[in-house]
Amino acid sequence: MAINIGIMGYGNLGRGVECAIRQNPDMRLAAVFTRRAPQSISLQTPGVPVLPADQAQSMAGDIDVMILCGGSATDLPVQTPQLARTFHVVDSFDTHANIPAHFDAVDAAAKAGGKVGIISVGWDPGLFSLTRVIAGAILPQGQDYTFWGKGVSQGHSDAIRRVEGVLDARQYTVPVPEALERVRSGENPALTTRQKHTRECFVVAKEGADLARIEHEIKTMPNYFADYDTTVTFISQEEMARDHSGIPHGGFVVRNGVTGLDGQNTHTIETRLRLDSNPEFTSSVLVAYARAAYRLGLQGQSGCRTVLDIAPALLSPLSGEELRAHFV
Amino acid sequence: MAINIGIMGYGNLGRGVECAIRQNPDMRLAAVFTRRAPQSISLQTPGVPVLPADQAQSMAGDIDVMILCGGSATDLPVQTPQLARTFHVVDSFDTHANIPAHFDAVDAAAKAGGKVGIISVGWDPGLFSLTRVIAGAILPQGQDYTFWGKGVSQGHSDAIRRVEGVLDARQYTVPVPEALERVRSGENPALTTRQKHTRECFVVAKEGADLARIEHEIKTMPNYFADYDTTVTFISQEEMARDHSGIPHGGFVVRNGVTGLDGQNTHTIETRLRLDSNPEFTSSVLVAYARAAYRLGLQGQSGCRTVLDIAPALLSPLSGEELRAHFV
Repeated sequence: MAINIGIMGYGNLGRGVECAIRQNPDMRLAAVFTRRAPQSISLQTPGVPVLPADQAQSMAGDIDVMILCGGSATDLPVQTPQLARTFHVVDSFDTHANIPAHFDAVDAAAKAGGKVGIISVGWDPGLFSLTRVIAGAILPQGQDYTFWGKGVSQGHSDAIRRVEGVLDARQYTVPVPEALERVRSGENPALTTRQKHTRECFVVAKEGADLARIEHEIKTMPNYFADYDTTVTFISQEEMARDHSGIPHGGFVVRNGVTGLDGQNTHTIETRLRLDSNPEFTSSVLVAYARAAYRLGLQGQSGCRTVLDIAPALLSPLSGEELRAHFV
Repeated sequence: MAINIGIMGYGNLGRGVECAIRQNPDMRLAAVFTRRAPQSISLQTPGVPVLPADQAQSMAGDIDVMILCGGSATDLPVQTPQLARTFHVVDSFDTHANIPAHFDAVDAAAKAGGKVGIISVGWDPGLFSLTRVIAGAILPQGQDYTFWGKGVSQGHSDAIRRVEGVLDARQYTVPVPEALERVRSGENPALTTRQKHTRECFVVAKEGADLARIEHEIKTMPNYFADYDTTVTFISQEEMARDHSGIPHGGFVVRNGVTGLDGQNTHTIETRLRLDSNPEFTSSVLVAYARAAYRLGLQGQSGCRTVLDIAPALLSPLSGEELRAHFV
């Protein structure tokens, strides 16, 4: 019996979930829900219905886990609690400051519905959260560092696109190699924002636009770029399409800590991710945690969880016996 | 109320556990047990009793979790099941092939005693197992690689010491940089044993010993060295003491996998450890999992677990609320 998965929202993340399900023989895509006109959407998987978002509740008997693929700003705070009354749910809510409130909302709804919700699933929050908590518990006398990139920041790319005279833009966040190497070598340096990351901007300008003015406006933009060493490179629309169409990302979490009676020994725990496609990787994480949500549901559990509450074995299609024999 | 910890066995690992407990204010070292004469042992922590190993059972009321610090060959297969009837237990059993049998023995004993046992805790098995299982669940179409080192292999060092004419020896396992870089860049190369690791041996020879014969015997030793590129360097006893007294180790687990409809996107998940002291780091992992064992016990659970069965939040002294607010 396959686990029946529903996808709520069919953007980059939803398409990624669709692909990831095909890699997991114990899962089946039952339906995709959208707020757009369903007939305007063509899935990559034949024979799967595309339905209006507001009909989700009527599919209660056909879907075990609903994977929410909307945005954290306005979609997930409403949708995840709403759907958690009817389905096990998994989302990638990533507004760090609002995680406690979102958790409480999903927890109340999931408990009311007797369902399991797992929120903030992905890589940060997600896998990087696991490393921060596990490494912090193992090396309590230490410090951790998170570096992001090299990768595309959607929010920063959008900010550049709003500058007068800009046709298109792509912004890469890049860890400063020297800072990363100092941290990875076991040092615990105090690092400013500027010392940790640089921002590389590739910009297509309108013909005749004042390039010097655009560059200045980007580099001095508060919150987004003013605190960083920022480079701006003007390119053609063709170069943008050819060289910058991917959505790569990744990063590093490093914890350095000491052990021994006098803290004489130093240790470094590091997690590194290198991702060709940020949304597809996040989707793959969501699908693995959907399996965990389903299994917790089978155990009769209910309420909200984060990745920190999920035993790793629940993510794997393999049995405990298989895991112990081959993977421990 | 602190968690009362007992230590069974006071070698490198036991001393490491003692140090790690001091870094965790929610824990207290209740007693150390040894098969040596207790009065021959002087702890680093004042006021803690050292008792004969066979008196452990009499301390049932004073110890919540017993951390076993013996060896996997003969100590743990006997001690862990024995003690799991009386205490929550945590061990670092690391004979991979025998983990299923050890699990079953501890599971039966722990269930009979209403206690929780967590076995094979450390970094490999342990943290590396977590990465293998989590990364495998997220990227099912992929391959993973484990590299060990640079670090001291105790078993290989001992093997060299048994060669006629050898006074002392230290063997380092070293990942081959080119192989590691190919894997880390996202390639999935087929790698032989020889292509993954080299073995560096530092040897103190008896005066007048036939160095060429010793070198030849080491390099051709089956199972230990014959399948590797091995270097042998003769040094003095002083150099051994000065340059090779540490017990560093570490390594890398890397999984490369693909996503997308046609597997067109590649991703790399990597965990790296760099450890000044292998036993002290392993001890720190044991202590974090002792906290988890205690908490599972409070929930009324019993039986054997591995690291794969433990939700990461159970390792941390922080509450769920604190973790969600600051670490997810």
